[in-house]
Amino acid sequence: MYEAEAPVNIALVKYWGKRDVSLNLPTNSSLSVTLETCTSSDLQLVTRTIVEPHHEDSVILNGVESAPNERIKRCLKYLRSIADFPCVKVRTENMFPTAAGLASSASGYAALVTAISGMIPLDANQKSIAARLGSGSACRSLFDGFVLWESGIQTDGSDSISKSIIAPGHWPELCCLVLILSAAEKAVSSAAGMERTVHTSELFPSRLEKVPDHIAHLLRAIEQRDFSKFAELVMRDSNQFHAVCMDSYPPVFYLNEASRTVIHLVHGYNRENVRLAYTFDAGPNAFIFCLEAELQSAKELFLSQIPGLATSNIVECRVGRGAH
Amino acid sequence: MYEAEAPVNIALVKYWGKRDVSLNLPTNSSLSVTLETCTSSDLQLVTRTIVEPHHEDSVILNGVESAPNERIKRCLKYLRSIADFPCVKVRTENMFPTAAGLASSASGYAALVTAISGMIPLDANQKSIAARLGSGSACRSLFDGFVLWESGIQTDGSDSISKSIIAPGHWPELCCLVLILSAAEKAVSSAAGMERTVHTSELFPSRLEKVPDHIAHLLRAIEQRDFSKFAELVMRDSNQFHAVCMDSYPPVFYLNEASRTVIHLVHGYNRENVRLAYTFDAGPNAFIFCLEAELQSAKELFLSQIPGLATSNIVECRVGRGAH
Repeated sequence: MYEAEAPVNIALVKYWGKRDVSLNLPTNSSLSVTLETCTSSDLQLVTRTIVEPHHEDSVILNGVESAPNERIKRCLKYLRSIADFPCVKVRTENMFPTAAGLASSASGYAALVTAISGMIPLDANQKSIAARLGSGSACRSLFDGFVLWESGIQTDGSDSISKSIIAPGHWPELCCLVLILSAAEKAVSSAAGMERTVHTSELFPSRLEKVPDHIAHLLRAIEQRDFSKFAELVMRDSNQFHAVCMDSYPPVFYLNEASRTVIHLVHGYNRENVRLAYTFDAGPNAFIFCLEAELQSAKELFLSQIPGLATSNIVECRVGRGAH
Repeated sequence: MYEAEAPVNIALVKYWGKRDVSLNLPTNSSLSVTLETCTSSDLQLVTRTIVEPHHEDSVILNGVESAPNERIKRCLKYLRSIADFPCVKVRTENMFPTAAGLASSASGYAALVTAISGMIPLDANQKSIAARLGSGSACRSLFDGFVLWESGIQTDGSDSISKSIIAPGHWPELCCLVLILSAAEKAVSSAAGMERTVHTSELFPSRLEKVPDHIAHLLRAIEQRDFSKFAELVMRDSNQFHAVCMDSYPPVFYLNEASRTVIHLVHGYNRENVRLAYTFDAGPNAFIFCLEAELQSAKELFLSQIPGLATSNIVECRVGRGAH
C-alpha cells in the first residue's frame, strides 16, 4: 500500500490554453504557488491517495468507484512505459469541494503520481510529465514553494516540465486566504473553456505575447519580497485571464457576484497602500494574498462584507511544500 | 423658441477610448444604429430639448437648473465660432433613466445641437463636431439608420465626423428590444472607464487593431441583411469591449447578474440557429436585436426568465431617423 498527499496550487500567472489537447501541453508557461493548509483550518486543501495492487485498474474518488477515465489511463500508461507495475486500486479523497475551481484535479493527479512513485523509481521530470498528462496544472502541485511550469516547445511534451524555483522559506510572511464562495461545479470545465478561448478569442494571442513579461516581473517581485508589486501583478494577470474568457465566443464567466464583491473590497482596502491581492482560477472562489500582519483584518473585512461567508468557508494557507 | 428631439443610438462596434480627452476624439471608429422608439412603448428613448434666448446661458436638465458644465460650454463655444447667437436657456428632458448606460448624454447633446441649428445655419459636419464636443457618441445620434463615426487622424478633430451610411429603410424587419435591467447610475462613468482602459489595459492595443475588421464585416452583414452573421459580430464586439474593461486596472465591470443571465439566455435560445443578439454599453441594460418574426417570443423569453423584469421595462425600437 502506497500513500501520498498533495496540496493545491494557485497560479499567479495563469495557465490558459492548450497547444496539444491530448498531452495537456500549454500555450504559455505559468507560475504558481503551492499552498499548505494551516493546521488550524477545518478544511484541508489537499488530496490524499492510496494505491494498492489489484486485479484491474480501478478508482474510488471520494468514496465512489468508477472505471479509470481517459486522463488516468493516459497517466498510468506513461508511468508503465517507464517501469512496469501491477494493476492498481486507487482510493483518492479531496478534502474540499471538487471541480469548483479549487484545483481538485491538480492535487489529485499530483497525489496519484506521488503514490505510484513509491512503487517504481521516478525522477522529478518523469513525475512532472505523468502528472501533467492527468491534468495540466497537476505538475505544479508536485513541487515546493513558487513553481514555474515551462510550456516547452517539443511536440512530444518532453520539455513541458515544472520545477520549484523559489523555496517556501523565502517569504514566510506571505499568507493566502482561500474564500470558498461557492462549492458548485462550474458550468464550463477548464478544458472546455480553454479550448473555446484558443479557438475564438481575438485578444488571446496578445495575452500570450505578454505572459513571459508577467512571469519575469512577478519573479522579481517575489525575489525582492515586494508585496505591493506582487499584488498588482497577480491581480492584473487574474483579470486578464477572465477578460480573455469573456472575449471567447460564447463568453465564459467564472466569477460570480461574490467574486466581484471581493474585487471591489480589495481595491477599496488598497486605496491608501496595497495590502491585499486577489486571484481567481476557473471558478468563483477567491484566493487572497496578504502579509501575516494583515491577516486578521483581512479576514474580518471579508466576513463582515461578503453575505453568507462564514469562518468555516475560509481556509488559511501558507506557501508550502509539494506532494509527498 | 427652438425645439428638437434626438434618439438614442447603440454602438454595434463600440467606441471605447479617447485619443484626445478634451476634444472627445476616439481611438477607433465606431458603427452604431439609431433607435426609434415604437409608439406603443410607454418609455420613449429620446431627449427633447427647447432652446430660447436668455440673459445668460443656463441649463434645466430634467427640471433641475444648473450652470452649464464644461462639456456644454465647449459645445456652445464651438457653435459660436461658426455663427454668433445670443445666450440661451436650454430645457432638456430625458424621457428615460439618465447615466445608466442608455445613451442619455448622446441623445442629449444631439438634441441640443439640433435645437441650436434652428437659430444658426449648420451643415452636417459642423453638427457632428459640435455634438461630439459635448459627448463623443452624441455625433452618432444626429443621423439616420446605421451610422459610421470615423475616428479621423487630425489633431484638431476636423475629420472625426459621423455620417449615415445605411438608411433605416434598408432592413425594416430589424427590431431592438431595450431591457432596462437597472436604472441606477453607473459606478464608473464612461469617460473615467475609457481613460482607465487606455492607460492600463494590455489587451486594448490588440482590440484597436481588430476594430476596422469588425466594422467592415458588420457592414457587409447589414448590407446583405444576414441576421446570423450580424448577431455574432455584434455579440463578439460587445463581449470584447467588456473584456478590455475587465483587463483594465482596477477592473471595470458594467454588467450585472441580470445582464449575464440575458447573455446565457440568448446563447441558449440560439443553439439551433441564431435568432437573437445582445449588446451592452457601459451599463447593465441589454439591447436585444431580432427580426420582427421573433419579437414576441423574445419578449416572452426575457419576461419569463429575468427576475423582476416587467413589460414596462422593455422598450421596443426600430432602426430610425436621427435628431430632428
